Amino acid sequence: VRQALKNIDYLFSPRSVAVIGASNNPDKWGFDIMSRLVRKKTDFKVYPINPKEKEILGRIAYARLTDVPEDVDFAVIVIPPEYAAAAMQDCAAKKVKSVLIITAGFKETGGMGAELESEVISIARSGGIRVVGPNCNGHFNTSSGLFTTGGEDVKPGPVGIISHSGNFGGYIVRQGTEKGFGFSKYVSSGNEADLTIEDYIEYLAEDEDTKIICAYIEGLKDARRFFDLAKRVTRKKPIIVLKAGRSPEGSSAAMSHTASLSGSDAVHDAAFRQTGVIRVENVADMVDIASALIRQPIPRGNRVGIVTVGGGFGVVATDTCRQLGLEVPPLSGETIERLNRILPSRWSHANPIDMAGTVHSSYGCIGNIMKTGGIDVVLVISCIGYVPRLPAGLPADTAEKLKNYHKTMVEGELQLVEGLFDRIGRYQKPVIVTAVNDRRESKPIAKLADYGIYTYRTPEDGAKVISYLVKYGNYLARSY
Amino acid sequence: VRQALKNIDYLFSPRSVAVIGASNNPDKWGFDIMSRLVRKKTDFKVYPINPKEKEILGRIAYARLTDVPEDVDFAVIVIPPEYAAAAMQDCAAKKVKSVLIITAGFKETGGMGAELESEVISIARSGGIRVVGPNCNGHFNTSSGLFTTGGEDVKPGPVGIISHSGNFGGYIVRQGTEKGFGFSKYVSSGNEADLTIEDYIEYLAEDEDTKIICAYIEGLKDARRFFDLAKRVTRKKPIIVLKAGRSPEGSSAAMSHTASLSGSDAVHDAAFRQTGVIRVENVADMVDIASALIRQPIPRGNRVGIVTVGGGFGVVATDTCRQLGLEVPPLSGETIERLNRILPSRWSHANPIDMAGTVHSSYGCIGNIMKTGGIDVVLVISCIGYVPRLPAGLPADTAEKLKNYHKTMVEGELQLVEGLFDRIGRYQKPVIVTAVNDRRESKPIAKLADYGIYTYRTPEDGAKVISYLVKYGNYLARSY
Repeated sequence: VRQALKNIDYLFSPRSVAVIGASNNPDKWGFDIMSRLVRKKTDFKVYPINPKEKEILGRIAYARLTDVPEDVDFAVIVIPPEYAAAAMQDCAAKKVKSVLIITAGFKETGGMGAELESEVISIARSGGIRVVGPNCNGHFNTSSGLFTTGGEDVKPGPVGIISHSGNFGGYIVRQGTEKGFGFSKYVSSGNEADLTIEDYIEYLAEDEDTKIICAYIEGLKDARRFFDLAKRVTRKKPIIVLKAGRSPEGSSAAMSHTASLSGSDAVHDAAFRQTGVIRVENVADMVDIASALIRQPIPRGNRVGIVTVGGGFGVVATDTCRQLGLEVPPLSGETIERLNRILPSRWSHANPIDMAGTVHSSYGCIGNIMKTGGIDVVLVISCIGYVPRLPAGLPADTAEKLKNYHKTMVEGELQLVEGLFDRIGRYQKPVIVTAVNDRRESKPIAKLADYGIYTYRTPEDGAKVISYLVKYGNYLARSY
Repeated sequence: VRQALKNIDYLFSPRSVAVIGASNNPDKWGFDIMSRLVRKKTDFKVYPINPKEKEILGRIAYARLTDVPEDVDFAVIVIPPEYAAAAMQDCAAKKVKSVLIITAGFKETGGMGAELESEVISIARSGGIRVVGPNCNGHFNTSSGLFTTGGEDVKPGPVGIISHSGNFGGYIVRQGTEKGFGFSKYVSSGNEADLTIEDYIEYLAEDEDTKIICAYIEGLKDARRFFDLAKRVTRKKPIIVLKAGRSPEGSSAAMSHTASLSGSDAVHDAAFRQTGVIRVENVADMVDIASALIRQPIPRGNRVGIVTVGGGFGVVATDTCRQLGLEVPPLSGETIERLNRILPSRWSHANPIDMAGTVHSSYGCIGNIMKTGGIDVVLVISCIGYVPRLPAGLPADTAEKLKNYHKTMVEGELQLVEGLFDRIGRYQKPVIVTAVNDRRESKPIAKLADYGIYTYRTPEDGAKVISYLVKYGNYLARSY
């Protein structure tokens, strides 16, 4: 196992990279990849390979890989499928450790493509080379700065991504980036002619930069191995899976896409549950639950306390919690007493705690509900990120007055956020924050994110995140 | 009926507005509302009422409403509940036509609050005054520029909103604004002591600015009237409803929020279906389906043609379509032949049409699938808004080259968009566009939105929108 993992290391942290099919034409993948490799200052060397060019993006180009004067750890192949075998032969001659094949037109197209794929892989095997793809869109490692796929805005962080589909994988990364968290490593596995999802999971399980593993899977090459691994890994790192091919029509689309056999969905679903894998239905949920696992404690039960600025949100959140099997238990007389002291008489006197617009009561309400024994997790709706943008067109003195007022409100929210960090640590209960206003300009929300607490857009999304956390917590409690 | 509608007109298009409880203190609703009323140049006059101030936001303040020297059509009440009856008496004396009561602490708190509410309403009734609320957060009319609630970014458009909950209503408006569409009128109905959701629906059904009606409902005061109305209205204007209080816990939260009786959810669900009301489960779906109804034709069947740049998206979209009861039928031999002429040999040769990254083939593929008899609606994934931002840190000549290349790609997308307008008109089939890249900077996506075609974030969201459109189309076909 260690040696296998070592070989995958060359993929993510090579000392030198060659691009077979590098190009000066922006219409080509070979241009894209080169431009990503030379953009930042990095520790690895880059060798473009192209018989027709002298120089590509400021780097000397070589006609063949074997012309490169120094060692090459890792090569990317982006030339048509019929030339791939010859390129792989050069890789073997050059003692390259790992190769990533972007090129499509192999097994996923059947017939001749399948034969070409076998040939390329058998050359790689005899040369001891591990192969990503073919028919994939690249990979990245934020700690070495190696990007063979897009990732301009990607920041380092604890989430590792494995995706059968390159487009889909890129999509997960973009959504996560928009949510605000960072990534450790990413790989699109494509046809998996050599390295498979199972291999990457084994690798990421050992990878210190990766705390959470997300995978988009069209089909498992070795389901037994996957679930054995999953059972072991999910106890220390959560695995979140989006498994496609749920319908017969989806399965046949998966076959023509990455030559994957989707398998029985019901069987997979049961196996995911039994091995603690968090199965999601779409990317939005994957990103939401991943972000919640970064810093929040795992809840010890399913009893939700809801604190809301507006009653409508409380109603909808309660409906959604109940639908998802979460409890929204009544408050004890003692808790109601304590809340009576800080809330106006028109508050709901019940869970959900509708503060009836008194956003300044949030600090006290959240503190009270967190210390209540009968509550395992708190859903906070619109208490943070509540302060709106300053409207345009006001008379100057009014604008000034409003600005000062907003400043005071923001300071209140910042105190609330500080308090949350302390309370989450003290009570070891997750606090799921939903912020329905525009969040891009909110300082308190940015502060939460810096700490690793991300916010959700709707009360329904918040409830959904809680239900995933509760299920994972139940699994962990059962499996010990 | 006409006279009733006329009275509601004074609410949305008054010649003069009084704010009873106007304030110079930014911590007060009376400040908020005043600041919204005076911000823009409008045709109506504004009279702040406050016994302690000489002037509020540049307007002369009057001690009592009866001191205002001119007629007042519409008054907002934002003073504590115990003073509301006296304020309503002044409104009656002044022959005000309609009153909106922001103040909470009435029937939703039970006991004394309920008595106060009865008193206020009986004064209003004897004065012939129609009342919004109490316990609401205001309303707006984009055509008259009257905003008693937030709406800085709101633009005029065809969507009218009625919401039991003020916070929730504001949330719908913000989400719609983010999606890119505009609104006609908005009202938060609160406790509905006088005017009810049924009244507002009747009004918006006749309102020329409103083409689509969205409602957040905690409980119906007169379910029979609602469904009679809905049956009539949904034939000419879609009604989209988010009905809360689905669970017993949610229902009791609704009771303490707006004193609403939620009623049996199963009964409501059946009645919504039988009257053509589009029932959604959350605001994201409400905004998505509303945006699709603005300009897209209603599909004549449930057969979906999928065109995608990446195979993974196609797999997930197919799964979701099937799950939602939509067909993803095979392509005819003839269609495959035609697509063979414009796509590389590695394309999927099936529906979903995976163009295998050849985004420039989108124009031809979409045209071909639209004219196919066996397809009722087209789902386009990532063909528009595909061009990424220009990455930073490239050498100058490379950046220039890439910039020109992107420019060409954007021009291709703009042509595709032009073609879509023409084709949607010609074939009368909806084309649902999902754009997974960041859409904020995409010219082609902005062009679509200007025309009234909005984009969706995920393939799953696109499929969901289609399933709502198909259900509504089925209802309309059956009900004629």
